[in-house]
Amino acid sequence: MNLILISPKDFTNTPSRIRLDQRRYNHLRDIHRVQIGDELSIGLIGGCVGRGKIVSLNHSCLEMDIRLNQQPPPPLPLTLILALPRPNILKRSLQAASVMGVKKIFLIHSARVEKSFWLSSVLQPERIREQLLLGLEQAKDTILPEVELRPFFRPFVDDELLELIRGTLPLVAHPESQFPCPSSVQQPVTLMIGPEGGFIAHEIEGLRRLGFTPVHLGDRVLRVDMAVPALLARLF
Amino acid sequence: MNLILISPKDFTNTPSRIRLDQRRYNHLRDIHRVQIGDELSIGLIGGCVGRGKIVSLNHSCLEMDIRLNQQPPPPLPLTLILALPRPNILKRSLQAASVMGVKKIFLIHSARVEKSFWLSSVLQPERIREQLLLGLEQAKDTILPEVELRPFFRPFVDDELLELIRGTLPLVAHPESQFPCPSSVQQPVTLMIGPEGGFIAHEIEGLRRLGFTPVHLGDRVLRVDMAVPALLARLF
Repeated sequence: MNLILISPKDFTNTPSRIRLDQRRYNHLRDIHRVQIGDELSIGLIGGCVGRGKIVSLNHSCLEMDIRLNQQPPPPLPLTLILALPRPNILKRSLQAASVMGVKKIFLIHSARVEKSFWLSSVLQPERIREQLLLGLEQAKDTILPEVELRPFFRPFVDDELLELIRGTLPLVAHPESQFPCPSSVQQPVTLMIGPEGGFIAHEIEGLRRLGFTPVHLGDRVLRVDMAVPALLARLF
Repeated sequence: MNLILISPKDFTNTPSRIRLDQRRYNHLRDIHRVQIGDELSIGLIGGCVGRGKIVSLNHSCLEMDIRLNQQPPPPLPLTLILALPRPNILKRSLQAASVMGVKKIFLIHSARVEKSFWLSSVLQPERIREQLLLGLEQAKDTILPEVELRPFFRPFVDDELLELIRGTLPLVAHPESQFPCPSSVQQPVTLMIGPEGGFIAHEIEGLRRLGFTPVHLGDRVLRVDMAVPALLARLF
């Protein structure tokens, strides 16, 4: 936890004072071994970041005086569209996207996505949020990405995608492409990443017709949780 | 498993025929649901890659006729030096380095590495090998990275590092640096990545004296398992 994320309900009646208990309190006590007077990085979900100073500490909670006066790091100008990966890989992929600063994520179906993945409990809003928060805590960010589910490929591509990619560079990660993924891109990007085994030829063809360029990252096929940091670090 | 890795002991008395049982047999039967006549990608650990065709299949093993006639993908011209991360992160970092094509990895101590991490069972050679093999299977590679442990920072830096970086671009990932990590590098690189919280100022100073340039990847501090794919995809 590089940043302690708080929400409006953590504030006490004293202005600028917050109270933490349970998970965050336990973590600060057991891992950071905090004491009265210690200063920590704090961020308000959806708001500013700053510092907090511990002013009281007992067996069940702690209180901090906080000052939130800085903007969180700028978002990445990228919309990420992932073919839904298997649940344990999805968790890491969401964390990776969140830590890298993506603010808009679509999880979509495609021919090689196993239908059973759509039944995973990891897709429950609070489970998704959990992974996104871990990413924000790591990156000292406060702005939660929006995640949208699209369990049908065709309507998403036919009805939404053209509007989504307007004004962006539309790329689809495709190991068989002849074009390497560009670097130092100076414009917003829409990036699609396929499932294990990739998008099928027919899907790639449809995306190409919409204006997508298939790009590769070398000879090696990365799993999506590694492809996300790799592609994003290369693009910007 | 994009590639089935085999070793000399998998060969039968018939030339070019192999027999698989246990883990790999179960995986092929249960996940890939293979049948007689199916073709799969095969690689000999330390050797070539090619195709195998299933010629027999029973309740406990399968046999394949194989032809290994292609070189594995080229290695990444990079030596990776990681301050030892916590065990679960170490596993993912080793997999990431292996999948990206790193062939030489040093795990070193530094001021902010918790001493207890050196006692983890994940550091046993067979546990390390397990993670590296997962990376090779993903990348369709056959060449195992070498992993060396250096539980003392000072002797490693004083006695080995200068020789290691000869002829390479020596970089140390350091979020506070003013220099962004370069891209499209055309020479071999030695890359050091610090522990949670980073290398301390004194360590960075010592590395700088040896010729290392501290570089950053933007405002966001990545955990090492994500920093590995991000930095490597950006560098090359």
